[in-house]
Amino acid sequence: MKLLRVGATGEERPAVRTDEGRLLDLSSVTSDIDGAFLASDGIDRARAAVAAGSLPALDADGLRTGPPVARPGKIVCVGLNYRDHAAETGAAIPERPVVFMKDPGTVVGPYDRVLVPRGSVKTDWEVELAVVIGRRARYLDGPEAARAVIAGYAISHDVSEREFQLEYSSQWDLGKSCETFNPLGPWLVTADEVGDPQNLGLHLSVNGVKRQNGHTRDMIFPVEHIVAYLSQYMVLEPGDVINTGTPAGVALGLPGTPYLRPGDTVELSVDRLGSQRQTFGQA
Amino acid sequence: MKLLRVGATGEERPAVRTDEGRLLDLSSVTSDIDGAFLASDGIDRARAAVAAGSLPALDADGLRTGPPVARPGKIVCVGLNYRDHAAETGAAIPERPVVFMKDPGTVVGPYDRVLVPRGSVKTDWEVELAVVIGRRARYLDGPEAARAVIAGYAISHDVSEREFQLEYSSQWDLGKSCETFNPLGPWLVTADEVGDPQNLGLHLSVNGVKRQNGHTRDMIFPVEHIVAYLSQYMVLEPGDVINTGTPAGVALGLPGTPYLRPGDTVELSVDRLGSQRQTFGQA
Repeated sequence: MKLLRVGATGEERPAVRTDEGRLLDLSSVTSDIDGAFLASDGIDRARAAVAAGSLPALDADGLRTGPPVARPGKIVCVGLNYRDHAAETGAAIPERPVVFMKDPGTVVGPYDRVLVPRGSVKTDWEVELAVVIGRRARYLDGPEAARAVIAGYAISHDVSEREFQLEYSSQWDLGKSCETFNPLGPWLVTADEVGDPQNLGLHLSVNGVKRQNGHTRDMIFPVEHIVAYLSQYMVLEPGDVINTGTPAGVALGLPGTPYLRPGDTVELSVDRLGSQRQTFGQA
Repeated sequence: MKLLRVGATGEERPAVRTDEGRLLDLSSVTSDIDGAFLASDGIDRARAAVAAGSLPALDADGLRTGPPVARPGKIVCVGLNYRDHAAETGAAIPERPVVFMKDPGTVVGPYDRVLVPRGSVKTDWEVELAVVIGRRARYLDGPEAARAVIAGYAISHDVSEREFQLEYSSQWDLGKSCETFNPLGPWLVTADEVGDPQNLGLHLSVNGVKRQNGHTRDMIFPVEHIVAYLSQYMVLEPGDVINTGTPAGVALGLPGTPYLRPGDTVELSVDRLGSQRQTFGQA
């Protein structure tokens, strides 16, 4: 099942996208797609409502697509999680996941404008597989136990400012947390529909030029390992988002470091999760 | 004015503490002390209600004190912000604030039990001055403009696991985000009542032994500089919390590194902001 939220920022309505591409209004089942919805078997309730044919059609013509989950409690990121990306940035293959965080206020919709921060000359792209947590996770027994706490997946654009991230201090969060720096969606695709999360291609182009073309089988730490690992050190709550790292092909690692400028357009896709498209503006 | 929240976890009621130490029930003014309250001139409304004598007394006997603001949207931390603490950890004096983040789900009340994580042998203390944001801040013009966006201050205990923070990867957030790792409060003391935030002593003892005895005049980057700086790189929202760093005297820097164990009791105080006391348990 594909869940989404449509409408103006802060006024999004919950919806389901059918296999035929129609939208159904989920407002009779929940007021929003958020942690409380996920924690209360909301996906099962939505599925039952779809099966019962009780949801009215939603006319989405002209409606914005928002992020598919309401503001997460936290966004946890894993850095350098693809061998080729670690190599292109000159970093060693990490022995443990490199964990950092992003301001959860950075989440925007998949087609929203993204802002190059004032003073930035090193704004970079990163296509990623996002995990959306569906159940509270604390000290999971291992990767197999992680399956039960994953609600589903979405495309995440982990926009990054390399000067703020890498040159201003040892800690990366500053260059990851700028306004609008985390487009998410268009859909939250439930885990059953995605199948094996290590069998997904990821793609990104800038102004029509292909830049990233990776595959989740090349993750150093697979999704279920990441979720189980994080649960040893923090409590994962329903609605939390985990960005699982980006493959090679970011501007930082390319000849001439072709960083993003206002007016550039970035298109992203992940197999089975749809696609995103953002045009960049100036903050 | 001193604002606080009393009651069981998740069921806290908003209250005001008078100069005489009595509690007044603020429920008629707001359902909670959170970002929406702060953004809507809530402090002014609370002050007017106190002045009008319209708030009923609140019998707090036996009631838990919660954190003084409901779950923050984010917790931003500044590391190595006192010269003596940078020296004791062997770090250079930073040229810019070292910025990292903590899971906002770590916030607990000032007297709540704090849990030593499973597998932890390096759980450490850090008394800090917390800034609570009261107005949206984005690209502030400078430190003077920061004054208008600060709602007030509170004691923050930035509990840290040094192995997770410093030995598992280059990024610190993992060792800062463990369950219960951010006792906050007891009060949100409004900025007008605190006066100069660079004129506050900070104190911490473990099992009655004095361990930290610092002063905010020794910050490398003062409070208003930090707020203005952060606003260049992220949007600060009402209810967000900034932990402004800790002075010398943490276990990491002491002979024998006397890290915390279950059963230990930590007492913290900051001038004009009250005191905290936590007994540690095992996760």
